[in-house]
Amino acid sequence: MAEAAKADLGEIIGLLSALPGPDEAAATQAADREGQLTKPPGALGRLEEIAAWFCAWQGRHPPRLDRPRVAVFAGNHGIAAAKGVSAFPVEVTAQMVANFQAGGAAVNQLCQVFDADLRVYELALDHPTADFSEGPAMTRDECATAMAYGMMAVEDGIDLLCLGEMGIGNTTSAAALSAALFGGSGTDWAGPGTGVTGDALSHKAAMIDQALDVNKDALNDPIDTLCALGGFELAAMAGAIIAARMGRVPVLLDGYVVTAAAAVLEKARPGALDHCLAAHVSAEPAHANLLQKIGKKPLLDLGMRLGEGSGAAVAIGIVKSAVACHAGMATFAEAGVSEE
Amino acid sequence: MAEAAKADLGEIIGLLSALPGPDEAAATQAADREGQLTKPPGALGRLEEIAAWFCAWQGRHPPRLDRPRVAVFAGNHGIAAAKGVSAFPVEVTAQMVANFQAGGAAVNQLCQVFDADLRVYELALDHPTADFSEGPAMTRDECATAMAYGMMAVEDGIDLLCLGEMGIGNTTSAAALSAALFGGSGTDWAGPGTGVTGDALSHKAAMIDQALDVNKDALNDPIDTLCALGGFELAAMAGAIIAARMGRVPVLLDGYVVTAAAAVLEKARPGALDHCLAAHVSAEPAHANLLQKIGKKPLLDLGMRLGEGSGAAVAIGIVKSAVACHAGMATFAEAGVSEE
Repeated sequence: MAEAAKADLGEIIGLLSALPGPDEAAATQAADREGQLTKPPGALGRLEEIAAWFCAWQGRHPPRLDRPRVAVFAGNHGIAAAKGVSAFPVEVTAQMVANFQAGGAAVNQLCQVFDADLRVYELALDHPTADFSEGPAMTRDECATAMAYGMMAVEDGIDLLCLGEMGIGNTTSAAALSAALFGGSGTDWAGPGTGVTGDALSHKAAMIDQALDVNKDALNDPIDTLCALGGFELAAMAGAIIAARMGRVPVLLDGYVVTAAAAVLEKARPGALDHCLAAHVSAEPAHANLLQKIGKKPLLDLGMRLGEGSGAAVAIGIVKSAVACHAGMATFAEAGVSEE
Repeated sequence: MAEAAKADLGEIIGLLSALPGPDEAAATQAADREGQLTKPPGALGRLEEIAAWFCAWQGRHPPRLDRPRVAVFAGNHGIAAAKGVSAFPVEVTAQMVANFQAGGAAVNQLCQVFDADLRVYELALDHPTADFSEGPAMTRDECATAMAYGMMAVEDGIDLLCLGEMGIGNTTSAAALSAALFGGSGTDWAGPGTGVTGDALSHKAAMIDQALDVNKDALNDPIDTLCALGGFELAAMAGAIIAARMGRVPVLLDGYVVTAAAAVLEKARPGALDHCLAAHVSAEPAHANLLQKIGKKPLLDLGMRLGEGSGAAVAIGIVKSAVACHAGMATFAEAGVSEE
């Protein structure tokens, strides 16, 4: 079984060399239509860019956005219980999953507002990853299993995938991954997460530095880095991003943790995130820097730092706006409006 | 009739001294509830501020946001035909109104996305304002009539008002108003609008300077300034903002032209826009500066510069998000989630 799972991680890595590109025909049709719509050229700004991006990566013209999904991946981290890197106890991960299931969390309300389907994927909450300040968080088998699980979020008929996460301790994982992928130390990449400040924040940064040192032999390869410093929910999100690319489903990234998981893929294969937009820049201080490293300009800047896919869910409204204008507006000829 | 209308403008100005403040009871209830919701304190960032603002200005707790309205005011400007300050011919104002009525404009699609009611208010499109580079755009009577007309947009049952406009030439009016209210010249405040560049942009700036000079005796008072340099749709939007305050309807401002109309009120009575949020910062270069002058931080920065209330309509999604999270989330106690 270990052997089979090992082969699976190899297969998943293999997909990164075979990612489909944008659909040039849909992109051309989108550009043609955009120029005919009843507005001054460029007047919808980023909405026009988003519409073009959406058509190209969905591979359809006119585009369709009827079934957005918010997929929230929940995992637990050994380092949280062992080293106390969060302001909240680890049982909150499972309690918040129950809250998602009962409809009481922020992301539930946001999915209602934007008519999105919410799916919560639990990754063995009773079996956290190993404490990565003492050794690798996951074996390759565990990482492959989590990635394959994440790929299931991309079901037929979904036309936009928003990624979110819940996992006490996972901003520590995001910070460690960011440092390993892009350089820098724990202090550069650690932030308050759910509310860690002062000495507790210094401790969090020190644990990240220790993790970088303990796992240093694994950090030359992005996927090995994910195994060493990631978490089940991060691996699952990386898997979901690959599956979305294969299935022609555009993706909205949420905050710091989602972006760190995504950055693993961009580092492994530049361009692997071309079908993804950054929904927002989080209040977690290092998120802006991480977005810059992967070349993404966020759609929203609302000081949010909740996770759960909340920022991505709010950005559904922007993508819907872009698609609706592109698909629904009249042309100058249809409306009998004079051009310049 | 001139006398009666004059009295009306006086009455409208009188309302500015009697604007209701925020509802302190609703604000207190909102703050109490916010602290109990299942998230780290402050983790929803500006969404939390928006929810508090909405409750205070709607004067209800829990807040209600079921009937957002986008009100688009259309007017024509004498300066457009007389001095050629736009990239588009003046008949486009009426053509675009027809496009709104037929459902073909950007704002129609956006209202569908956010389930908002769209109303278009035409202000005598066959009778443009006077060319304000030669004298005042409107008489006090005309301004009062337009403001009173705008007040009608605030009907019972509306719980969010988004303001938008259509009027070939109206960024020239917005720039002239901004210069008169906050200082500076045509060059400081004129931008491309629908697409004016090079010599045509210099001409636009020169016409603004001429308008500031010709009307200089009117520019000591903000309402007189509105009469001199505004337009029917700008006066109507100023009226709508006042009516919304009286009727406890929170307001989303759109782009440069809406903000200029609103700025007249803020200048006449500081705090007059406390029930308004800036939906976005437009690509029209001077809009960011104008927002700073009235102390508003935009919700969105998407490079939009279309008008029609399009930016305000996109921001409905953000206000809905804020209200839905505040009203619908479970408390820590309800969800059985451990606190810090």
